Amino acid sequence: MAEAKITKRSEDFSRWYTDVIAAAELADYAPVKGCMIIRPNGYAIWEKMQQALDAMFKDTGHQNAYFPLFIPESFLHKEAEHVEGFAPEVAVVTHAGGEKLEEPLIVRPTSETIIWHSYRNWIQSYRDLPLLINQWGNVVRWEMRTRLFLRTTEFLWQEGHTAHATYEDAEEETLRMLGVYRRFAEEHMALPVIEGRKTDREKFAGAHHTYSIEAMMGDAKALQSGTSHHLGQNFAKAFDVTFQTQEGTREFVYATSWGLSTRMIGALIMAHGDDNGIVIPPRLATTQVVVVPIFRKPEERERVMEAVGKFTLRFKPAGIGFKVDDRDQYSPGWKFNDWEKRGIPLRIEVGPKDLERNQVVLARRDNGQKQNASQEGLERTVRDMLETIQSSLYERAREFREKHTHRVDDYKKFLEILDADGGFLWCHWCGSGECEERIKDETKATIRCIPMKAEPEEGKCILCGGRSERRVIFARAY
Amino acid sequence: MAEAKITKRSEDFSRWYTDVIAAAELADYAPVKGCMIIRPNGYAIWEKMQQALDAMFKDTGHQNAYFPLFIPESFLHKEAEHVEGFAPEVAVVTHAGGEKLEEPLIVRPTSETIIWHSYRNWIQSYRDLPLLINQWGNVVRWEMRTRLFLRTTEFLWQEGHTAHATYEDAEEETLRMLGVYRRFAEEHMALPVIEGRKTDREKFAGAHHTYSIEAMMGDAKALQSGTSHHLGQNFAKAFDVTFQTQEGTREFVYATSWGLSTRMIGALIMAHGDDNGIVIPPRLATTQVVVVPIFRKPEERERVMEAVGKFTLRFKPAGIGFKVDDRDQYSPGWKFNDWEKRGIPLRIEVGPKDLERNQVVLARRDNGQKQNASQEGLERTVRDMLETIQSSLYERAREFREKHTHRVDDYKKFLEILDADGGFLWCHWCGSGECEERIKDETKATIRCIPMKAEPEEGKCILCGGRSERRVIFARAY
Repeated sequence: MAEAKITKRSEDFSRWYTDVIAAAELADYAPVKGCMIIRPNGYAIWEKMQQALDAMFKDTGHQNAYFPLFIPESFLHKEAEHVEGFAPEVAVVTHAGGEKLEEPLIVRPTSETIIWHSYRNWIQSYRDLPLLINQWGNVVRWEMRTRLFLRTTEFLWQEGHTAHATYEDAEEETLRMLGVYRRFAEEHMALPVIEGRKTDREKFAGAHHTYSIEAMMGDAKALQSGTSHHLGQNFAKAFDVTFQTQEGTREFVYATSWGLSTRMIGALIMAHGDDNGIVIPPRLATTQVVVVPIFRKPEERERVMEAVGKFTLRFKPAGIGFKVDDRDQYSPGWKFNDWEKRGIPLRIEVGPKDLERNQVVLARRDNGQKQNASQEGLERTVRDMLETIQSSLYERAREFREKHTHRVDDYKKFLEILDADGGFLWCHWCGSGECEERIKDETKATIRCIPMKAEPEEGKCILCGGRSERRVIFARAY
Repeated sequence: MAEAKITKRSEDFSRWYTDVIAAAELADYAPVKGCMIIRPNGYAIWEKMQQALDAMFKDTGHQNAYFPLFIPESFLHKEAEHVEGFAPEVAVVTHAGGEKLEEPLIVRPTSETIIWHSYRNWIQSYRDLPLLINQWGNVVRWEMRTRLFLRTTEFLWQEGHTAHATYEDAEEETLRMLGVYRRFAEEHMALPVIEGRKTDREKFAGAHHTYSIEAMMGDAKALQSGTSHHLGQNFAKAFDVTFQTQEGTREFVYATSWGLSTRMIGALIMAHGDDNGIVIPPRLATTQVVVVPIFRKPEERERVMEAVGKFTLRFKPAGIGFKVDDRDQYSPGWKFNDWEKRGIPLRIEVGPKDLERNQVVLARRDNGQKQNASQEGLERTVRDMLETIQSSLYERAREFREKHTHRVDDYKKFLEILDADGGFLWCHWCGSGECEERIKDETKATIRCIPMKAEPEEGKCILCGGRSERRVIFARAY
């Protein structure tokens, strides 16, 4: 067990991030450049994310399926924007079974092409629509600069691919799944997010338009945390997927796709983590509670462990995930520190003196507060406390975001605030790609999204002074 | 919706298998040679398999993790037998990000090498052992002849990789996981299996020895359905993984690995399917019950649907997965046939006459039997019926296996029975690779395993007459 030191967050956010991952044993770099090994503690978070999302996908009528890892190179070329976006970053299999392949195979960077090739056989009539499919799997994008969870050559994700009879149906689905992502972020990750539309420059390669949820990290930078694309008829046309309408005509099918990845583990770390390490929101923690028994003499051990056995017996039926750390070779203080850096939401301390008073001590990971609680009905106290921690984390992140959100109408001020504070800068923008690009080049800030819940408001583009009807969000982003 | 015809099983087992998969919409061939698309109906079975196995893995102390898809080619060469076994069938990435790679990457055919490379950093002392890890993922083996589910270039599986302090601990783990596979096959798949040890010729490339569970399919051929390997210190030595013992010395670590794949969906089809299609054991069926309401006039529809709404309301709390097929465009007879070929274990028919008697009709998929049941307490009747179907399927498969199991002591008879019936042939074998190989060359039958539960018995090798201490199982296999 490595006694990993964690750099202070305020000192060097980037090193802090790396240290937190090492200290909690979440992931390692792999011997293959840019690839990552997701260790059990990291993977357990991903499993919880999968469970929550998968249930939401099924509740909204989706089914899971699995399409091949390999895509014939020619498929990628069928949709012009798509190939332009992805061709530079694909990994290519040229040899297999000891021979050179006739046609190289690309390792999927995303599955639109292979899936729409299948949909051609699956979709004949309006009765086959909507087709609502999701896939859990791995994808590969050859990235130059990689960071654990945030940007890795291979990553795990889910990708939804749906087919619809009309533009409107597809739009409804695109927004429905954006809403699922928002609910997932808010309710499970305790992460407030802003729903919005991406600019044309930032949309998915091959999409008609793209929506995303954008979150603020602990250094006030933005992280795109899930995207939902309206693909129009682009892929249906590229793969010739038509359906017979109720009226007997043939039309091209409308499509959506949407994805969320292991990047969200990085978001979770950067949104909630502190100088002691990761803080896992209770709903994504497999171990929600760690019980640390405190004793010196053997007869104390026995009495304490008996009490622990009693109250933890009621934890499982109450749906509380817990561990009892009764290792003899470590001191209680060492254990406190060890579980803190692993981000376990709640610690229960119990020693001989607590027994006398029929109580335990509860220590919250999110704010370090301690309080006594009766052993009577402890499972209810713990369950309530976990809910409190979950909502406190959300509230803290929301307040942090508000604090680092600025309405800016002057480009000089824009630069000042960006350098002094970062954060989300709500500004007017004329809608031109030139202004967008020049701002990016000059400031490294990009338009994160055109927020959906913002009121229309007349104004002037922060760069060129041109007419604008609503504010957009600029930020430096991961 | 394709009106797929299913070839009679007795007529052409192989075509029957392909037809069943098409009729139930379980899988398609992909545009990449040998790859498969697992359609929602097929993937739903895999999800149920995953849930059952994952719970058993966790109950036995294992954690999930994720290792990279790509393995540096040099890693494969570190274990001599391993590379010999796998090198001929790997897919190789030579280019990525628009450039030629310095070292080619192989797409994992199995993950021992990349995992043991990591274990070197994770294991220092006896306190770090045992290390009990499982991975869910995809692997690629370039196969010449492929069949949906049974043998595909890419397949989904789980692979367990554990590290232990002693040979005995590793042996215990190897057998424990073999037992998990056996229980999974018997209790969830309703598939009786024989646990046994593989001969040296048939063991995993790089293993000290291999165990497997072997099942009999509906054409009396064998299917290897899960393997558990004792790897000795082979991979620890290849990747220099040592640990400090309690006594302060350094020793190489002992290893196991074990895997089970989407091949089991093929096993399920071939073990239980009939001329009407697949038969899904209730414990692996997402939709366990389909309700087909029967009506002609609109007022009948209303009354029937009201009753259906009432009794299905109690299904969800009872943990019964169900669907109500109230599509107006199809006749009841068409629906019966449609759900039969999808293998739904139980059908409930309910029409106006049933309402008068406060009853429904239950129709079993496994044997076609129909019976009336009261709407009162129907959830209990259905739950019991599903359990009955589950155990009947197991019993039928077991009886089938017994019927096609032969004790043979004469090589001429061996050939006769093999050609006339196939099945499992329990024979004496001297233990030599030469006899094993000659029998394989002459008969296409291989030694499936040296069964663990067989009594020792003196005898003479069926080929050479040499001394033998126990019978082994010969069979033609998939």
